[in-house]
Amino acid sequence: MKLAIYGYGNLGRGAEAAILKNPDMELFGIFTRRDPDTVRSNTGAKVLAAGDILKYKDEIDAVILCGGSATDLPALTPMLAMDFNVIDSFDTHANIPAHFDAVDAAAKAGNKLSLISCGWDPGMFSLNRLYANAILPDGRDYTFWGRGVSQGHSDAIRRIPGVLDARQYTVPIGDALDAVRSGRQPVLSARQKHLRECYVVAAPDADKSAIEQAIKTMPNYFADYDTTVTFISEDEMKEKHSALPHGGFVIRTGRTGLNDEHTHRIEYSLKLDSNPEFTAGVLVAFARAIGRMASRGETGCRTVFDIAPADLSPLSKEVLRRTML
Amino acid sequence: MKLAIYGYGNLGRGAEAAILKNPDMELFGIFTRRDPDTVRSNTGAKVLAAGDILKYKDEIDAVILCGGSATDLPALTPMLAMDFNVIDSFDTHANIPAHFDAVDAAAKAGNKLSLISCGWDPGMFSLNRLYANAILPDGRDYTFWGRGVSQGHSDAIRRIPGVLDARQYTVPIGDALDAVRSGRQPVLSARQKHLRECYVVAAPDADKSAIEQAIKTMPNYFADYDTTVTFISEDEMKEKHSALPHGGFVIRTGRTGLNDEHTHRIEYSLKLDSNPEFTAGVLVAFARAIGRMASRGETGCRTVFDIAPADLSPLSKEVLRRTML
Repeated sequence: MKLAIYGYGNLGRGAEAAILKNPDMELFGIFTRRDPDTVRSNTGAKVLAAGDILKYKDEIDAVILCGGSATDLPALTPMLAMDFNVIDSFDTHANIPAHFDAVDAAAKAGNKLSLISCGWDPGMFSLNRLYANAILPDGRDYTFWGRGVSQGHSDAIRRIPGVLDARQYTVPIGDALDAVRSGRQPVLSARQKHLRECYVVAAPDADKSAIEQAIKTMPNYFADYDTTVTFISEDEMKEKHSALPHGGFVIRTGRTGLNDEHTHRIEYSLKLDSNPEFTAGVLVAFARAIGRMASRGETGCRTVFDIAPADLSPLSKEVLRRTML
Repeated sequence: MKLAIYGYGNLGRGAEAAILKNPDMELFGIFTRRDPDTVRSNTGAKVLAAGDILKYKDEIDAVILCGGSATDLPALTPMLAMDFNVIDSFDTHANIPAHFDAVDAAAKAGNKLSLISCGWDPGMFSLNRLYANAILPDGRDYTFWGRGVSQGHSDAIRRIPGVLDARQYTVPIGDALDAVRSGRQPVLSARQKHLRECYVVAAPDADKSAIEQAIKTMPNYFADYDTTVTFISEDEMKEKHSALPHGGFVIRTGRTGLNDEHTHRIEYSLKLDSNPEFTAGVLVAFARAIGRMASRGETGCRTVFDIAPADLSPLSKEVLRRTML
């Protein structure tokens, strides 16, 4: 299968590395909106101009879109879905229905197949919520994120005047995890579930206490959480906070039995050294499925909920039954 | 959807309770090979003779087979698969390919749809192995079971002369779990991964040391493990060991990056108060999928690998995208 990567930031570089781990996959090339001559691929792959992608319509089995959810994907995915089988990681939960409809219409018009909102959340976490709800209908779901870098929260801090750089770690609170695991189904506030740890490089003349105040009172992002702010040097930021670890937990506890006498816990967790590389691994596996399903004549938009797991694997169904069932 | 239960032991009773937790499901009746007049349902459901099941062919959307893998299911599932959509929990891993072929042929001959080897292992654990392998192709899988009652091992002890009753707990070893979670990908022997804890009621005149010896040296079941044997009274067995808890862990760690520089861990775990009730919950969710897929005209045999997750949920795809993605 020939895959193309569209967008060459952290996620695009992760996809490039992930394709190399899958012998049935081949990287056709990397499409960039920058001048291709200024972009060097980590592996020597072809770098091509995003504006030229239609020229290669018949040579690419699927395109992995590695743009951002805020501004890139809402326009990009529907635009490309008419001419290519595309996979994106659109993660603005509230806008998924509208994004789905736009991509579905485009893909159907072009007789192509798309998958949106793939990765780990949305993605693998969503799948685990669905499976657990179907198995234990009488129960309660909990999702914890971290410990890991939230790009959105880091960016929000960077927009504060006087901030040169920032990194925000979302940290699940151990007591809350324990309470959830007990099966007692506690009701937990945002503050009870996660801490927000911020590391900030301030401009030399900046008012640090004003920055700290601006962070801690920022609505939606920080106001509802216990937040710590630590000012560090540019060197320390580079040395200790350059990695992009992440992870989290999806837990459902529920009751069964004629008198609800039995409690069960289903827990799925991820611990990731590199959020973009892991996300890219998920995208490449689902690209395999989308390529196969497209070659069976399917069209329109799908989500991870629509993909039979066997289609994700390079192994035949017979081998899967023999070795993994 | 109208479901029937075939076999009314622990699993059948679990399925009866699980159906009540799913408002879109209705229990048509329970089929038993015993005299139906001697079997009382826990919920007042109809109890019918197994031999009469064909009379109800047109009234049942799917049959959940609640027999044992050793002797019941190899004959039963193919027999019923020609006339009904059936779901079983066949768990003799080595014989899954042969069982699949037999059920597939029968279901195709009768234009029906079957699902075999559903539950948590095989079942949810298998799904997690598949997903994790697809996402992290360069890695290693580990499955741990327990702490929980192994019926097969308990039965094996009961066959030793002088044993009146026995319960065997499979116990995962914490140090092994920690080593796996570290991402170092250790190679672990059976003995390093699990302990076997046995509780035995001996006949008054039995030679306890001979029983202990017979257990600890039993090939396949115990010889390759560190095994503890504790003799207890019938009363203590009833009081402390009547429940059927179980659970376990599926863990895959793997590396990504152009230089394998990042390590990731995917972990799925279950902690179950009642193994049969949880297993039944899985069976009922997959029965929903099989009913839907059959009504779309699909025939033959399937496994959990072939089921798009959305088909397991009572919610529409639109609601799933809005609420769980």
